[in-house]
Amino acid sequence: MLDESWLPTLNTETPQEGFELAVKLSRLAVMVSQSCDNDRQEARSMQANDASQLIGAAHVIALNFQTIAAANDWWRHPVSDRNTQ
Amino acid sequence: MLDESWLPTLNTETPQEGFELAVKLSRLAVMVSQSCDNDRQEARSMQANDASQLIGAAHVIALNFQTIAAANDWWRHPVSDRNTQ
Amino acid sequence: MLDESWLPTLNTETPQEGFELAVKLSRLAVMVSQSCDNDRQEARSMQANDASQLIGAAHVIALNFQTIAAANDWWRHPVSDRNTQ
Amino acid sequence: MLDESWLPTLNTETPQEGFELAVKLSRLAVMVSQSCDNDRQEARSMQANDASQLIGAAHVIALNFQTIAAANDWWRHPVSDRNTQ
Amino acid sequence: MLDESWLPTLNTETPQEGFELAVKLSRLAVMVSQSCDNDRQEARSMQANDASQLIGAAHVIALNFQTIAAANDWWRHPVSDRNTQ
Amino acid sequence: MLDESWLPTLNTETPQEGFELAVKLSRLAVMVSQSCDNDRQEARSMQANDASQLIGAAHVIALNFQTIAAANDWWRHPVSDRNTQ
Repeated sequence: MLDESWLPTLNTETPQEGFELAVKLSRLAVMVSQSCDNDRQEARSMQANDASQLIGAAHVIALNFQTIAAANDWWRHPVSDRNTQ
Repeated sequence: MLDESWLPTLNTETPQEGFELAVKLSRLAVMVSQSCDNDRQEARSMQANDASQLIGAAHVIALNFQTIAAANDWWRHPVSDRNTQ
Repeated sequence: MLDESWLPTLNTETPQEGFELAVKLSRLAVMVSQSCDNDRQEARSMQANDASQLIGAAHVIALNFQTIAAANDWWRHPVSDRNTQ
Repeated sequence: MLDESWLPTLNTETPQEGFELAVKLSRLAVMVSQSCDNDRQEARSMQANDASQLIGAAHVIALNFQTIAAANDWWRHPVSDRNTQ
Repeated sequence: MLDESWLPTLNTETPQEGFELAVKLSRLAVMVSQSCDNDRQEARSMQANDASQLIGAAHVIALNFQTIAAANDWWRHPVSDRNTQ
Repeated sequence: MLDESWLPTLNTETPQEGFELAVKLSRLAVMVSQSCDNDRQEARSMQANDASQLIGAAHVIALNFQTIAAANDWWRHPVSDRNTQ
């Protein structure tokens, strides 16, 4: 479907990098839905033109950010801490 | 409803494989809704043509990805680690 | 509202059975909304005709699947393991 | 806003009772939104007439069911078990 | 943005109070979106007139209720219990 | 994409500050969707004009608030408590 190495981990150093990863994942999901359903190779970027679409896009980002935040244990304490609990 | 062996586990090796499984699950849910409601045997693929639908499809993928990520303990540490905690 | 014995447990043996239960729960929720709001005894099935509705239906299934997956501890390890942790 | 005693607990004996509570909570949320926004005392019931609205209503029920399922520890093991862990 | 003391805690005594707080938070979020985007000082209340909007409002309430329920450990056992686990 | 230092942490002192951060994150997500999709440098603020859009915006805020609340352990007990559990 996609080349092999685009998402090796959900870990990021900071919430900000996690947010950027959430944006990336959200765009990817839009692209995947598009290219597969329409069988077009040229994937359009997410064309969010009006307020409803922008809010919808923000919703997807927020959901992916929640996933990534959980994966990073909410950036509350280092992973090493948790492993030695 | 469907043949028996299509979802034996939610475990994947990497977040990327988890994302691909999320895409698969999302398509399956669309197909299931369709074939049962319309009683048509030929299930269409998810026809997401405009931005709102693409964003909606990305939302479903994001939700399934969250489920799969949780099932894989967010790919934070191997399952074996967790079992011996 | 409904007969007594339709949901004794959320436990399923496999993710696949969990997915099928999620589909069942989603249909049930549509039926319940319908029969009570419209006071019609003949409950229609979920009539998802266009892409937006199919995506919406897939979203509900994904949410119920997440609940059921959590209830089954994501099918990560048997319930007996967890109880003796 | 409402009389005092309508939601003393989220605990239910079975998933099925939890589902029914989720339906109740969902209707309540619709009524609360309505009566307060429109300043009408006669609260209409949730008027879900078309497929999109039925799916939307099912979505709210699914979300409340998730909350209630978590509150009941997914009906996995009795509360007493958990307290003595 | 708002006066300082409107949300000191997410803790409530009962699920019912939690639900009422969820309603409050939901209204607040609508007001905040409105006053900032439109630069109008007179914030309208959430004007949910048709079924779709009422269901949407119920969805926001359900999501905030989930957050508050989690914050209260689902009202399963007193906070003191948990702290001494 | 954005300057480096806008989200160093998800921790806030109070639920209220957490809510304000949720509002900020939600706006940011709208801005990011917009500036990247339309290639316009002048990012509009979230233009939520009608009830559906306001409810949609409130939904995004509620989801981000849930993430932030989880990151702060629901403001249930200080982080130091948790670390020494």
